[in-house]
Amino acid sequence: MFTPIKNVKVYEQVVDQIKKMVEIGELKKGDKLPSERELVSELNVSRSSIREALRSLEIIGLIECKRGEGNFIRKNFENNLFEPLHIIFMLEKSTSKDVMEVRQIIETESAALASKNIKNKDISILEDMLLKLKNCNDEKKSIDLDKKFHYKIAEMSNNFILLSIMNACSGLIDLNIKGVRDNIILSSDKKEELVKQHEKIFLALKNKDSSKAYSEMRKHMKFSNDNLLL
Amino acid sequence: MFTPIKNVKVYEQVVDQIKKMVEIGELKKGDKLPSERELVSELNVSRSSIREALRSLEIIGLIECKRGEGNFIRKNFENNLFEPLHIIFMLEKSTSKDVMEVRQIIETESAALASKNIKNKDISILEDMLLKLKNCNDEKKSIDLDKKFHYKIAEMSNNFILLSIMNACSGLIDLNIKGVRDNIILSSDKKEELVKQHEKIFLALKNKDSSKAYSEMRKHMKFSNDNLLL
Repeated sequence: MFTPIKNVKVYEQVVDQIKKMVEIGELKKGDKLPSERELVSELNVSRSSIREALRSLEIIGLIECKRGEGNFIRKNFENNLFEPLHIIFMLEKSTSKDVMEVRQIIETESAALASKNIKNKDISILEDMLLKLKNCNDEKKSIDLDKKFHYKIAEMSNNFILLSIMNACSGLIDLNIKGVRDNIILSSDKKEELVKQHEKIFLALKNKDSSKAYSEMRKHMKFSNDNLLL
Repeated sequence: MFTPIKNVKVYEQVVDQIKKMVEIGELKKGDKLPSERELVSELNVSRSSIREALRSLEIIGLIECKRGEGNFIRKNFENNLFEPLHIIFMLEKSTSKDVMEVRQIIETESAALASKNIKNKDISILEDMLLKLKNCNDEKKSIDLDKKFHYKIAEMSNNFILLSIMNACSGLIDLNIKGVRDNIILSSDKKEELVKQHEKIFLALKNKDSSKAYSEMRKHMKFSNDNLLL
């Protein structure tokens, strides 16, 4: 299963071996890793190297440590890009504008892809969300429904990488312009306009019109961004 | 500077404190971190917790460890998204098609943004690259020039997050469809077509025509992907 290690930068080699096992499918989502003690003996390295490796794998989101149970390959990777994107954001003088630009790109292109993949059950789900959004008078619930609508569209792109990028950007936006998202919902004429925009996106998707889905999502994103930036 | 730590999950708290110092600008690109010994005494935690934290920060690409010199905040973050994207790719049943789809999206939208930001010196640089590409008969150099041309355009998007996503996708493509990139260069009629496509992209950029830049890049990406997938 494992190959004993002899060289320097030991923890990185442990990380590499575990990653390789994931790559070839020997370790899959939800699988339990051998215990620290077993890893020490199988890989022939110190306990501290094993711990450094496991912590590293935990922080990059490959494994999760369950107290008293051991280490497992994670089942959910949607938020894996947030941490490294956050670092880039902090150190590369990126601005909120940059993040919103990326989110706008991902969402418009996802909408175009989604229109090609849409199934009847997706149409029902989106239609139901839209109806709820229309009749919702609770600000917080509106925001939540709005997010779910967008998430559903990104999901329909059938591309998990796109979905992960969108999630990471969403996290960064929430972190950096906290509370501003609420402003957009407050005035009732804006709320009406927002619902209309969602309806137009929905119709384009339903009609499998990818360029319309793209352009309506773009308009909606521009409207959202303009209002967020106020 | 630091606040002593008392609770559980110690290494994560160390990570958080260092990240917070980056966030508020107390630690900047290239800055040296205190030594392990200093961190142990300032944060009042065990040496092994400090090491686990430092390894974790190293693996997510925030710090780099220079032998005999200590730990530094990294200066370059372009490749930070590769590792987590690779994990997502391995575990979420993503395919090469997904990665190429994302790259296509990022490059076409970058071209559109680049056309809005282009400066005279960018035009000269791209023009020079194009001329070299046209006259190049060495396969490897052609691939390299081609990559640089695309990189330059992504850079001109003025959005480091986009550039990082493109780099991560490029890395994944190289990893997964190694060697295939060469095929496209081999036949001379295809080479001619590729040069023509680059010229069209260049002209659209030069004319600051963002929708043309978008559509020409999209055509070029489709051509590249079709040929890569053969």
